[in-house]
Amino acid sequence: MRILVTGAAGFIGSSLVDRLLAEGHEVVGFDNFSTGQPEFIEHALTSSRFTLVRGDVLDPDVLTRAMEGIEFVFHLAANADVRFGPLDPRRDLKQNTIGTSNVLEAMRAGRVRRIAFASTGSVYGEAEVFPTPENAPLPVQTSFYGASKLAAEGLITAYAEAFDFQGYIFRFVSILGERYTHGHVFDFYRQLLDHPGTLTALGDGKQRKSYLYVQDCIDAMLLAVEKAPQHVNIFNLGADEYCAVNESIGWITEHLGLSPRVSYGGGERGWVGDSPYIFLDCSRIRGLGWRPKLGIREAILSTLRFLQCSPWLLERRR
Amino acid sequence: MRILVTGAAGFIGSSLVDRLLAEGHEVVGFDNFSTGQPEFIEHALTSSRFTLVRGDVLDPDVLTRAMEGIEFVFHLAANADVRFGPLDPRRDLKQNTIGTSNVLEAMRAGRVRRIAFASTGSVYGEAEVFPTPENAPLPVQTSFYGASKLAAEGLITAYAEAFDFQGYIFRFVSILGERYTHGHVFDFYRQLLDHPGTLTALGDGKQRKSYLYVQDCIDAMLLAVEKAPQHVNIFNLGADEYCAVNESIGWITEHLGLSPRVSYGGGERGWVGDSPYIFLDCSRIRGLGWRPKLGIREAILSTLRFLQCSPWLLERRR
Repeated sequence: MRILVTGAAGFIGSSLVDRLLAEGHEVVGFDNFSTGQPEFIEHALTSSRFTLVRGDVLDPDVLTRAMEGIEFVFHLAANADVRFGPLDPRRDLKQNTIGTSNVLEAMRAGRVRRIAFASTGSVYGEAEVFPTPENAPLPVQTSFYGASKLAAEGLITAYAEAFDFQGYIFRFVSILGERYTHGHVFDFYRQLLDHPGTLTALGDGKQRKSYLYVQDCIDAMLLAVEKAPQHVNIFNLGADEYCAVNESIGWITEHLGLSPRVSYGGGERGWVGDSPYIFLDCSRIRGLGWRPKLGIREAILSTLRFLQCSPWLLERRR
Repeated sequence: MRILVTGAAGFIGSSLVDRLLAEGHEVVGFDNFSTGQPEFIEHALTSSRFTLVRGDVLDPDVLTRAMEGIEFVFHLAANADVRFGPLDPRRDLKQNTIGTSNVLEAMRAGRVRRIAFASTGSVYGEAEVFPTPENAPLPVQTSFYGASKLAAEGLITAYAEAFDFQGYIFRFVSILGERYTHGHVFDFYRQLLDHPGTLTALGDGKQRKSYLYVQDCIDAMLLAVEKAPQHVNIFNLGADEYCAVNESIGWITEHLGLSPRVSYGGGERGWVGDSPYIFLDCSRIRGLGWRPKLGIREAILSTLRFLQCSPWLLERRR
């Protein structure tokens, strides 16, 4: 298949591109390199089946041109910095909702009708049911990020209804692993590089979160696209476990051989719109035969090992 | 209070403006007159407590200026033509989602923090639970209209979380009554004026829908704003009954003394994204003491009587 991946130079996008190329597909990678890293697609660029398009999902013309001959779109380009929504409430709306609208319009113009979308467990807001299933009670959005992703989901499913699109919507927990560029493991590791004796955690350290290893996430997406036959296919993707921030701190500091004094920002939530407890019911994707290969602890350690080998990334993302 | 009403020259907006003026409030009416009717605010314009701002919610500057001194916003401006989403999927996104984002940003700039929003029962897509409660299972959006309104709800509640806004979200069934300018009663009445012997209905005539009389809708909104104390207050607004399209046709033709031959467009749905069964659980708003004064039949007849007295509107909306 000829597949377009938006956000192709990002953490998950570049990992997906490598997998799609390894499976023999032709891949067009689309990225504006706002957070994507050229190093992440170095390997892809050695393949004759890979084409790079430098472009922004807010530029409909470039998107429409990139859609030529495409049979399937993985739309991963997004603002993924969940924490900073209130600094500019329009940013998530533009990059995540309007960006998705542009992708869908470019698909319609190019008669491309299959799309997989990286949504988020944040669409459940502060969930009331745990583990949270895909058909949880209609949640109240608490973050601009979650609101913008749920809005994008709505667009995709309305295109499925109106224009015979087929949509795959994946609601991720936090993803970990090689090429990880932001999030709590990144923040903690950088802090401990700068000052090994102290560590500051947002919230009270008791927030419970679920995580998933990036290759397990990609396994799940590829399996669903192969096996799920509906017009609209929605899947939670996460581990069947969660951990507290304090447990994560324990694994990280133990791996690094450090015993920092830990202080806390305070409050139940790490930031405005943070959900203090995220744990998704993933029985739907498990029903297709998917099982994650790494648990949360192993995923955190693989992320740490990657960061330890990537001092350039730590420097660049300052 | 000094209250801004967007969509002030529309069906529901102008009816609300009159009620707010009658209660002694100062009202700033905001409308771009794309579907609003100057005649609907003729009465309001005779009040010294009413100011009209001719503007579009897609123009942030005019909105920001209109917000001066405002204490409460009723945001009703929207594309309300549910049926034509697929003709231009960007229209609902722009007018309903981005328009709401602009209203919220103008409020933030003007330190206005209380907003009531006209959402829709269409956010439930094709609901699985009847009557459908506010916390129904997270629905799949089937219409661009519903998707754009749910996206706007998400923005409002994210502002409530991040910026201490107070939000009132009202999910309406179809509203009927004086100043009604579009929808099935309008379509049927016009058809029967043009050719009294034949009537064409969309779908199969068996779609079951709930309706609410406009003054009952306004009663509910004013009561909720007065009594509901939460940061985020979400209410279904509808009658505790529904009717089939064919019943509605019976009441309309009986009132007009006609016996047309009825033909059907076919299919279970009236249009792409139409939900064949809409019936909302309104026990939450009833819990505040609200009761509708008119049933569906009476609301349809009041709408017909209004249309019979308003030939100018029939002509203009051709």
